[in-house]
Amino acid sequence: MAVSQPTRIMMGVNESTIKGYPYPSISSKGAFEWTINKIVSSNTSAFKLLFVHVQVPDEDGFVDMDSIFASPDDFKTMRHRERVRGLHLLEHFVSRCHEIGVACEAWIRHGDPKEVICHEVVRVQPDFLVVGSRGLGPFQRVFVGTVSEFCVKHAECPVITIKRRADETPQDPIDD
Amino acid sequence: MAVSQPTRIMMGVNESTIKGYPYPSISSKGAFEWTINKIVSSNTSAFKLLFVHVQVPDEDGFVDMDSIFASPDDFKTMRHRERVRGLHLLEHFVSRCHEIGVACEAWIRHGDPKEVICHEVVRVQPDFLVVGSRGLGPFQRVFVGTVSEFCVKHAECPVITIKRRADETPQDPIDD
Repeated sequence: MAVSQPTRIMMGVNESTIKGYPYPSISSKGAFEWTINKIVSSNTSAFKLLFVHVQVPDEDGFVDMDSIFASPDDFKTMRHRERVRGLHLLEHFVSRCHEIGVACEAWIRHGDPKEVICHEVVRVQPDFLVVGSRGLGPFQRVFVGTVSEFCVKHAECPVITIKRRADETPQDPIDD
Repeated sequence: MAVSQPTRIMMGVNESTIKGYPYPSISSKGAFEWTINKIVSSNTSAFKLLFVHVQVPDEDGFVDMDSIFASPDDFKTMRHRERVRGLHLLEHFVSRCHEIGVACEAWIRHGDPKEVICHEVVRVQPDFLVVGSRGLGPFQRVFVGTVSEFCVKHAECPVITIKRRADETPQDPIDD
């Protein structure tokens, strides 16, 4: 078979929503590990992973409700802290790829995750997009996350939706 | 890396809707070729394809409006013809897999395609499901087929939706 370009898999990844816990959400981590096990398998040179982390501008200041801003530098500090959290998240995935031996790239964007991800698909033209979904809670069997649902409809490439397994669902649905 | 089980990919396939044209629909053929090119690639021994073709019972007799039934045997003939069409469809995919050197299984079921496919997912437990979608017509950009949409929400495994490319969309949307 002729040498061909690797299949480029874009993956939208986000943080755990547990406060002060700057690690990947259960669904992002699950979607990544699933992709490695079931798609990439031992054929690491045939794939390249592209990680996009979309940071949502904190419009109503809710996240920083407990902070006190006394100077313009305090805002700079907040933005710096956000950036550090984002980098920490991407570092997790880039390190895993490095361990596994699969090529990758990772970057941060700002905005509405579902729209930014679809925009990045147009710009970067991956072969397909992987989105994790908080899907299968005990009382929300048929719920599929709004980001994944939007991407399945609007992204200009094939989309694979990976629901969290029932046994991975945290007690409090917000603790993803 | 330890020898592991192949990744089992289930694929719902259907016929072209052009009358008297017992070949795969553009979206089924597109979804299959995409999966071979982008996922299976040269790593043929790591995957197994499972084709399910769901035949819809012709409740209102529309398909056979032009037929005349004069004896019970005429119905038998009709059912036989349907079965032959289904086998012809599956033969296309099984032959392609054989050429490519990837293991496969194929079978026919009857009923409502979206429900039967989700039921088969529970029964057969594939690693993921591939569904083609008539998706991107010129005036229906955001439309995703009802079968694929249902499966994304309800199937108890990851689902990849592959929309037809715009340049593959036939003039008459029914000619898929």
